[in-house]
Amino acid sequence: MRKALALAAVALIATPLAAQQVERAEIARIIDEGMNRSEVMITAEHMTDRIGSRLTNSPGMRAAEDWTLSRFRTWGLKNAHKEGFDFGRGWWAERQSARMISPRPIDLTAMAINWTPGTPGRISAPIIVAPMREPAHFARYRGQLAGKIVLVTLPDEGSEPGEAPFRRLSGDDLAKLDVYQQPSYDPEAGDRRIKRLEYAEKLDSFLKAEGAVAYVTMSARDGKLLHGNGYLFGVGETQQVPGFEFAAEDYRRLARLAKVGPAPVVELESVVHFEDADTKAYNILADIPGTDTSGAYVMAGAHLDSWTAGDGAADNAAGSAVVMEAARILQRMGVKPRRTIRFALWSGEEQGLLGSMAYVDQHIATRQRKAGEPSTGLARFYGWTDRWPVTRQPGYDKLVAYFNLDNGSGKIRGIYAENNVAAVPTLRDWMAPFASMGANTVAMRTTGGTDHMFFSALGIPAFQFIQDPLDYGSRLHHTSADTFDHLKSADMRQAAVILAAFLLQAANSEKPLARAPFPTQPTVTNPFAYPDPDDLD
Amino acid sequence: MRKALALAAVALIATPLAAQQVERAEIARIIDEGMNRSEVMITAEHMTDRIGSRLTNSPGMRAAEDWTLSRFRTWGLKNAHKEGFDFGRGWWAERQSARMISPRPIDLTAMAINWTPGTPGRISAPIIVAPMREPAHFARYRGQLAGKIVLVTLPDEGSEPGEAPFRRLSGDDLAKLDVYQQPSYDPEAGDRRIKRLEYAEKLDSFLKAEGAVAYVTMSARDGKLLHGNGYLFGVGETQQVPGFEFAAEDYRRLARLAKVGPAPVVELESVVHFEDADTKAYNILADIPGTDTSGAYVMAGAHLDSWTAGDGAADNAAGSAVVMEAARILQRMGVKPRRTIRFALWSGEEQGLLGSMAYVDQHIATRQRKAGEPSTGLARFYGWTDRWPVTRQPGYDKLVAYFNLDNGSGKIRGIYAENNVAAVPTLRDWMAPFASMGANTVAMRTTGGTDHMFFSALGIPAFQFIQDPLDYGSRLHHTSADTFDHLKSADMRQAAVILAAFLLQAANSEKPLARAPFPTQPTVTNPFAYPDPDDLD
Repeated sequence: MRKALALAAVALIATPLAAQQVERAEIARIIDEGMNRSEVMITAEHMTDRIGSRLTNSPGMRAAEDWTLSRFRTWGLKNAHKEGFDFGRGWWAERQSARMISPRPIDLTAMAINWTPGTPGRISAPIIVAPMREPAHFARYRGQLAGKIVLVTLPDEGSEPGEAPFRRLSGDDLAKLDVYQQPSYDPEAGDRRIKRLEYAEKLDSFLKAEGAVAYVTMSARDGKLLHGNGYLFGVGETQQVPGFEFAAEDYRRLARLAKVGPAPVVELESVVHFEDADTKAYNILADIPGTDTSGAYVMAGAHLDSWTAGDGAADNAAGSAVVMEAARILQRMGVKPRRTIRFALWSGEEQGLLGSMAYVDQHIATRQRKAGEPSTGLARFYGWTDRWPVTRQPGYDKLVAYFNLDNGSGKIRGIYAENNVAAVPTLRDWMAPFASMGANTVAMRTTGGTDHMFFSALGIPAFQFIQDPLDYGSRLHHTSADTFDHLKSADMRQAAVILAAFLLQAANSEKPLARAPFPTQPTVTNPFAYPDPDDLD
Repeated sequence: MRKALALAAVALIATPLAAQQVERAEIARIIDEGMNRSEVMITAEHMTDRIGSRLTNSPGMRAAEDWTLSRFRTWGLKNAHKEGFDFGRGWWAERQSARMISPRPIDLTAMAINWTPGTPGRISAPIIVAPMREPAHFARYRGQLAGKIVLVTLPDEGSEPGEAPFRRLSGDDLAKLDVYQQPSYDPEAGDRRIKRLEYAEKLDSFLKAEGAVAYVTMSARDGKLLHGNGYLFGVGETQQVPGFEFAAEDYRRLARLAKVGPAPVVELESVVHFEDADTKAYNILADIPGTDTSGAYVMAGAHLDSWTAGDGAADNAAGSAVVMEAARILQRMGVKPRRTIRFALWSGEEQGLLGSMAYVDQHIATRQRKAGEPSTGLARFYGWTDRWPVTRQPGYDKLVAYFNLDNGSGKIRGIYAENNVAAVPTLRDWMAPFASMGANTVAMRTTGGTDHMFFSALGIPAFQFIQDPLDYGSRLHHTSADTFDHLKSADMRQAAVILAAFLLQAANSEKPLARAPFPTQPTVTNPFAYPDPDDLD
């Protein structure tokens, strides 16, 4: 009994004491640089206030590409470069406005839907409320839309938000995240989503054929927040009818007035510009070279692109600035890691994680293309789980760890192990020094919807950090309130310090982090399911 | 023992059983009309969507005065009329816009501050951040403001809202309200507030003398909500420099950019109109006449005027529509009350409860005017507790009960007894039928800030109802999100039913509600206090 305990105690010490002391000394230097001479908020401020929103391929994103590259170079990182991938059109709105002019004048909160054409000057027209979700609904409004501004969303009533908008995770919250998640796969899901995407084009054709002068959607959030959307960014895909999003309160008011009648008259103006000189989008990459010659590397990434309703601060200048700050800290310390440390700022994330997908495709493993599959667009993302077989690239074995940040500016509370059971002990070991900063959890569950997905799906140890949610999900994510003032500087300093430490430990560890098995087929979890007839239209 | 209990049981039954049954039958008819043929939302919708914001003396408020009068008359109420009182200028904004044009173009969320002059067309100028709160701060910016747009609020950081925005009261919440509140009186408070008010005029003179082209305040709420303000509505008081309020996110962004420099350039336009044909504001009054000849009456009131950021829905079309609906219900039932039931829609509430103050002054009791006291303005409100002696008017004894609604659209959960200990048993008796609708609390505490204040300060049984807060305080009160879609129709039906029942019971009760003693002097609670030197500047 005594012997067994002693063995267990030895097993718990993953790293010998002397090596731990070296590591801790390095971590202390990281903390000193990251806490006492932090530049993370300077970086985030420039990216949000000065550059502003960074829609993929917009002038804002181009400026951000140039500026982040120049920062990496100024700090002394090597191999700073951009890698292009097929994307589509650049677009930006110079100005956009909307007013109701009858039955009474009132300014409306509005934005142009991304990648839709501008209005021919200031136009005014009566509205019609014509809620449509699929082509089967077009028939109801045929012949009624000529010369009208068409409100296409079904209006709802005011939300009743019963949760605190600003929140930090309790110990209980964190414990609940430590749950293994069984894989699931719905072979028809991709096709369904692609069909919904095609609906946007069909709606545009219908509105154009009917002679509508513009269409309006309702913001997905109320409280006068704009949310934004728009996915028809491919060359040759551009809509013909100008599109606007209205704040929910303004949209609902118009809809009620139209119900009683007569139809309100609305004045619209959007001055937008398309930029087609370069249809490639670019990921930004920069290295701190490793000392060994194997080509092995560890990587941190965050997406640099944003939507346009706000300045893309919490989503995701915060993550980008933390990744850049980790680079700055480690470079300033003059670290000479065993393995190369790579920093990635992805593009096209908001249009389907297209930047990280392109990187994986080019450097890590290639998925079989389906016949007729487009080289860009959200459809490419929707289809990715259906593409088999997957062929490893020579670079597959070189990437030994990837860390992602894309959950706002909240401090790091731990890391999601993404069902990678074998990596957990090492992750716990690396997290240990940061318990007093609030980060002490390694939670088994998987997360999705951002750039580590393609890496972890291949068995690569690729993780997202657990962050305090703050008001990211409740009011900042994609909205007009996503501005620098809602970023928390103490949190972002902490995140940059922890990320730098994880990168250095992953780069220097004797053994690389455990990989999960390479996938060979889709995980069909319910072979007895029938498709819903609503999905077959 | 047995005898004592029997006596107590008799005492508890305030109303004989037969009378109770008559009352309950009437209440059942009220519920039928108010639940099954409700028009409360039709009324509120017209007031908010169709008429819109109702700033005192604006065209919107004039339209609301006319429309509500005509509704009362159409329903058959008697003596429907308006009563004027000195107020000031009418004002409305036809359009208002703001954009940052350098360092990058972006639309800003902005509104003209009420009663400020319009811009001379579309103007653009560099901003300067010059936070000022009192005349002592002017010196810091002298000589720096010429040709500038001056940001006068000290910028802060993003809020961290830790409470759920939408809330209903629990039993515990309700129990906490049942607390007698000792009176307090600070004899210098009125003068301090008046001084702050004078500051707005001094700031305007300073900005004008310095050659500033406009000034900007930051919204009191963030999350891109506008809040609105402006109190210089008196004839001859009008500011000379156009004023704007910017959403907090937009304001803070400008302030940060200016800190790094160069100063952003902003483009502003406000097209506003002053209406001076009639400087009186008007309360709307209408009666269901009583059968006795004493002239006694009971009254329900709500303020009809609003601010301009939104449509003044929760504040206070909701209360106005509930008061009107109670009138409609009782009139439709053809009730013949013993005492007259009067319905009041107050004006000038947002500028210092000026409408109800004027009514009290004219009909209930007159307070001694101080030397040089103005006949209108917020200053008149600030000074009211200092005015002694108070002289009863002949109408003082006629008003036997007043009920106020001004807390949004949440359903009634009970009533505040306003420290009127003697009225509590009767209020409990009248509330009893509505326990199954969620209203079963009579809470001792006082409430302030709205139109029952002047009545209850005179000992008149004047009460506010306890309402579920919903999102009134968290995001609707005075903001751009205060629109009809956030009103809850089930709640407003319930409130109209309960208000109608209270009015009918108060009008028909054998004995009128107990009055509190008439006040004869201010309640000096701390005769040993010294004024803070900061308040003496």
